Amino acid sequence: MQAIGVRRGEPEPTVLDIEPPEPGPDEVLVRTLRVGIDGTDHEVIAGGHGGFPDGEAHQILGHEAVGIVKDGGATGLTDGTTVVPTVRRPRGEDSKGYFTRGEPDMAPPGTYVECGIEGAHGFMAEYFVAKPEFLVGIPGQMAEHGFLVEPISNIEKALDLAWATRSTFDWQLETAAVLGNGPLGLLALAILGDRVDTTYCVGRRDRPDPTIDIIERLGATYVDSRKTSVADLGTDYEPMDVVVEATGYAKHAFATVEALAPNGVGALLGIPSDWSFEIPGGQLHREFVLTNKSLVGSVNSHIPHFEAAITTLDSLPDWFIDALCTNVHPPTDLCAAFGTDDSVIKSAIQFDTV
Amino acid sequence: MQAIGVRRGEPEPTVLDIEPPEPGPDEVLVRTLRVGIDGTDHEVIAGGHGGFPDGEAHQILGHEAVGIVKDGGATGLTDGTTVVPTVRRPRGEDSKGYFTRGEPDMAPPGTYVECGIEGAHGFMAEYFVAKPEFLVGIPGQMAEHGFLVEPISNIEKALDLAWATRSTFDWQLETAAVLGNGPLGLLALAILGDRVDTTYCVGRRDRPDPTIDIIERLGATYVDSRKTSVADLGTDYEPMDVVVEATGYAKHAFATVEALAPNGVGALLGIPSDWSFEIPGGQLHREFVLTNKSLVGSVNSHIPHFEAAITTLDSLPDWFIDALCTNVHPPTDLCAAFGTDDSVIKSAIQFDTV
Repeated sequence: MQAIGVRRGEPEPTVLDIEPPEPGPDEVLVRTLRVGIDGTDHEVIAGGHGGFPDGEAHQILGHEAVGIVKDGGATGLTDGTTVVPTVRRPRGEDSKGYFTRGEPDMAPPGTYVECGIEGAHGFMAEYFVAKPEFLVGIPGQMAEHGFLVEPISNIEKALDLAWATRSTFDWQLETAAVLGNGPLGLLALAILGDRVDTTYCVGRRDRPDPTIDIIERLGATYVDSRKTSVADLGTDYEPMDVVVEATGYAKHAFATVEALAPNGVGALLGIPSDWSFEIPGGQLHREFVLTNKSLVGSVNSHIPHFEAAITTLDSLPDWFIDALCTNVHPPTDLCAAFGTDDSVIKSAIQFDTV
Repeated sequence: MQAIGVRRGEPEPTVLDIEPPEPGPDEVLVRTLRVGIDGTDHEVIAGGHGGFPDGEAHQILGHEAVGIVKDGGATGLTDGTTVVPTVRRPRGEDSKGYFTRGEPDMAPPGTYVECGIEGAHGFMAEYFVAKPEFLVGIPGQMAEHGFLVEPISNIEKALDLAWATRSTFDWQLETAAVLGNGPLGLLALAILGDRVDTTYCVGRRDRPDPTIDIIERLGATYVDSRKTSVADLGTDYEPMDVVVEATGYAKHAFATVEALAPNGVGALLGIPSDWSFEIPGGQLHREFVLTNKSLVGSVNSHIPHFEAAITTLDSLPDWFIDALCTNVHPPTDLCAAFGTDDSVIKSAIQFDTV
C-alpha cells in the first residue's frame, strides 16, 4: 500500500510502498479516507519534535485521520463505521495508569508514544490498525472533514482546562483573542466566537489574505502583531478575558499575562523551541497575583474531547470549513500537500473516498 | 483611642491618638483584640504598595484583625460576638457587581479599597467599625489567634483556585513545595501537609533557625535556596505537584514552571516589585504545554475562604500556632512589634483581651 513518511536522515516526506498492516485479534483494520497536515507534521519532518518508532528506518506521518472500518474482527466494531483515531498509545505497560483511567492526554512524557509524532507510525497510509478503545465513531455524513476532529479536540481540551481554572467564581467574560491565524488558531477563533461577545485574532499577514477574510467573516477583528504587540492588546484594543496561544512563539506565552483582563486565563497550545529572552518579570508576576490571572498549558486530547469536537465540527458553518480546508491532494502530490505558501490554510491527503 | 498608623511622608508607623469611630446605622462597632502584622504592612509603611485614604493625613494600618462586637446597633449582630473583618470594601458604588455577587476578591483594581492597605483605614486601633456583611463570626475560644484567619483565608483561596485548575482530570498528587518560610509560607506548608504525602519549604536561612525547626516538626524538608534553586527542585529533590510561591521574588514565579511535575500547578501569592530579567522562555513555555502545567495568581479572599480558614485554624496543632506566633506586643511597643530579626515569625499587636 501507499504510505507517506520520512526516512531517517532525509529532510522531506516521501511516498513509501509498504505492506498493509495486519490487525491483531484485538485490533481493527481501518481504510483511510483523509489525513490532515499540521504544524506538528512539519516539525516531525524537520526533526524538531517527536521521534522515529524504535528500530524503524522510516516513520509514517499523520495524526489527524478519518477512515472507515474495513474489518472490525473480534472487536465488535461494525464494518463500515466511520472512525477517527486518537493519537497516544501506551509505551509498554501503562505503568502509571493514565490509559486505564482514560486520561492518556495527561500522561507524562516517557509513558506514551504518539502515532505519527513520537515513537509510533501515524495514519498517513491507505490502511492503519488500532484497538477499538483508540477509535471514536463519527456520523458517516461527517467523513469528508472528519480529519478536523483531532485538531478541534485539542482546542476542546485546552478550553476545558482554561474554563476549569475560572470555575471557582462567577466569571464575567466578554473578550477573547487567539494568537495565530493558522488552522488551529482559526478553529479556536470560530469556537470562541460562540462563547464570548468579541473576538480578536492576531497574525502577521498583509491584506489581501484568505485567513484575514475568514477572521472578519467570523465577526472577529484582525490584529497585525507587527503593529500591536501581544502585550499591547489591552491598551490598543481591550483587555482579553481569554487568550489562546496557537503560534508556539515563546514570547507570546508571557506577553499573554499582560494582554489578559483581570481574572483572565491564557491557554497555551503552541509548542516552542528553546529560546532565552528578557521579560518584565516583576510586573508580570504582580499582575498574575493582584488580578487573579491564570495560564494553563494543554497538549493532546482524549475521547471526551473528541466527542465534544464532533459536536463542535457539526456546528461550524459550511462556509468556514470550506474556506479553511483549502487543499486536498492525492498521496502522490506531496509537494502541493506539504506546501506552506500563504494561500494554503489546511491541507489534507486523500487516500480514498467513502 | 490609640491607633497605629503611618503619617504621610513618614517612614515608620506611629501611635496616633484619635477619636473612636462612630458607627453608622448599618454598622457594627468592634472592640479590637489583636491585629497581625505581615509583609504587606511593611510594604504599605515603605510606600511600595497600597495608598492613603483620600484626603487623610494618616493611614491606620492592619488588615488581620480579631475583635468583639461592642455594639451591634440595628444590624442584628449580637454584642459580645467574636468577629474577624474581611479586607475589601467597594470604592463608591459597586459598579461591576463583585461585592453584590459576594466576590470582592475577584474585583478589578479601582473598584475597591482595602482596609489598612489601599485607600481605607485598617483595624490597628482600639475600635473599628464595619458593616455586618464584612464581619465573619468565629468561636469565642479562637479569639486569641483569630487574627490568623485572614492570612489563612488567602491561602484557602489560592489553593481553591489551584485545585480548580486541576479539576478536569484525576489529579494524582503527592508532593508540594512552599517557596518562602515567612508566616504565610509556614501556614501554607501546614495546610498542604494535610493534602499531600511529601512537603518541602524553600528558604534562605542558616541553622539554627526557628522556622526551620517548624518546617521539620511539620514533617517537611527544608530546602536552602542558596544551594538548590527553585528550578532545580525537581532534580535535587523531586518534581512538585504543587508549588505555592509566598515570597514575591519574581524569578521564583517563572522557575516554578520548571519545579513542577507534569500536570502540576503553581499558586502565586507573593507580590513582587518591577524587575526585568532573562528566562529560558522557550523551554518554560514548552514544558507548560507538553506537560499540562498551570500557574494561577491569587489575591485577597472573601467569606467562604474565611469560613474555610476558621475550620483550618481550628485543626492546626497548638504547638504550631504557638511556635508561629512569636510576638504579641502592646500598641506602645512598636519597635518590637514591627521588628524583623530572624527570631520573629509572626507578630501581633494586642489592644485588649477577651
